[in-house]
Amino acid sequence: MPTTNHAPATNSPYVHGYSPQETRRLGDQADTLAALLHAGTAYEPGSRVLEAGCGVGAQTVHLVRSSPGAQIVAVDHSEESLAQARAHVTAQAPAAPVTWRHADLRQLPFPRASFDHVFTCFVLEHLQDPAQALAELRRVLRPGGTLTVIEGDHGSALFHPDSRHAQTVIDHQVRLQSAAGGNALIGRELHPLLARAGYAAITVRPRTVYADATRPTLVDGFTRKTFIAMIESVRDEALAAGLTTTAAWNRGITDLRRTTDPDGTFHYTFFKATARKPQP
Amino acid sequence: MPTTNHAPATNSPYVHGYSPQETRRLGDQADTLAALLHAGTAYEPGSRVLEAGCGVGAQTVHLVRSSPGAQIVAVDHSEESLAQARAHVTAQAPAAPVTWRHADLRQLPFPRASFDHVFTCFVLEHLQDPAQALAELRRVLRPGGTLTVIEGDHGSALFHPDSRHAQTVIDHQVRLQSAAGGNALIGRELHPLLARAGYAAITVRPRTVYADATRPTLVDGFTRKTFIAMIESVRDEALAAGLTTTAAWNRGITDLRRTTDPDGTFHYTFFKATARKPQP
Repeated sequence: MPTTNHAPATNSPYVHGYSPQETRRLGDQADTLAALLHAGTAYEPGSRVLEAGCGVGAQTVHLVRSSPGAQIVAVDHSEESLAQARAHVTAQAPAAPVTWRHADLRQLPFPRASFDHVFTCFVLEHLQDPAQALAELRRVLRPGGTLTVIEGDHGSALFHPDSRHAQTVIDHQVRLQSAAGGNALIGRELHPLLARAGYAAITVRPRTVYADATRPTLVDGFTRKTFIAMIESVRDEALAAGLTTTAAWNRGITDLRRTTDPDGTFHYTFFKATARKPQP
Repeated sequence: MPTTNHAPATNSPYVHGYSPQETRRLGDQADTLAALLHAGTAYEPGSRVLEAGCGVGAQTVHLVRSSPGAQIVAVDHSEESLAQARAHVTAQAPAAPVTWRHADLRQLPFPRASFDHVFTCFVLEHLQDPAQALAELRRVLRPGGTLTVIEGDHGSALFHPDSRHAQTVIDHQVRLQSAAGGNALIGRELHPLLARAGYAAITVRPRTVYADATRPTLVDGFTRKTFIAMIESVRDEALAAGLTTTAAWNRGITDLRRTTDPDGTFHYTFFKATARKPQP
């Protein structure tokens, strides 16, 4: 997905999140997309909120801004990401009441009903068993509490000029993520995943990014620095896996970059779901 | 495009709009989508508005409702569609000040600067030369007047469960429309088309339909009765063109219908553009 801020569940190298460049990319993307993705998410003062899979804190800073009085607990299974997230959020909002915990989403170190709300963004796409994670999140949520899930879906990437070479490099990323146990096409599945996990009052809505020359900030911040950068980051893995050649890869990336020219366009849809844990 | 209400520029049989069933389908779809597509479009009383390519009047009824005081001139190159549109709008809004004209978009029977506003929906996708039509629409628009264009893009169709069989039948429709001189992927191109045609203040925004079991009206009205019905309507042409077999076609349609089950989802993006004819 174009905006992973979460370290992978496996040790597959295709997902990153460690280098300074990567951290900056994630910051760029989060700022560009924050209004789109976080609109409508604000937790009441004093509420206990779990951010499940905070990664390097790209979304945590927006949670803190939107819900200044909430007691946020941010967990991640990567100690290194967690340290970066803590440094990032502390720099941005020193007084924010965030608790950081190293934890595995499959088995969280919290009693049942510990949280009023759970927020998770660009996390399920990396998990081999998202249903198991949703069950665990439901366990730690109080009855009546809300779950918010945001995911992308690479099948929604649509651009002008159209190019099968560009489509192919996107397909390589989807395939690599799948080989690592993830799912870059998970956005379309949020409704059935939440329904099967026993959540109620499920609402899924598309949050669509569309960039053309009249929106240069989105062209740069989303098309170029988020989506294309994310695809470019799997180049070595795609070559190592024998999915492509240097020439074919470069052709696809060149065509993707072509969509950022003044006559180019780029479209991508995120899916934002909210749901409740049923009352007993 | 899923919601064609416009007879084709060619005599290709793949686009329809003549049978009673088809007319009903277009009515269903327009009602389901009207709020999404027409939001933000209202013309001031007394303004002269051209609907370019009114087809059977599916959008005209919404123009009349949203802009009750505007002087609407609806044109279409099909006398038969025009007669249906007139009957449809007269039944819905007998007092609406609509003038009906049989005309070719490539050469409109109006002097330059005849209109304050031009509206065209699901029309450019059928034209061999949309740039020529946009130039002609610009001619009849007064300087400072607005153009509104709505188109779909089949590349945005995304569904769960995913299925290459379903994707293939969609691809057949795209190919048949292309063979007839049209472009079912035109939504992504609206910005460059309008820019090259000399329009100013261009704004293109996605209008995304997302249907799942929590929105049964959209599942029925859009996924089933608009999108899938539109794909199904090219069955005979796809078979005649040798693009598919009966078995393969049925498999694809079955998989498309599967997306309307309680655990299915369906996503489609329309693009709505507004622009102005520059002041001299």
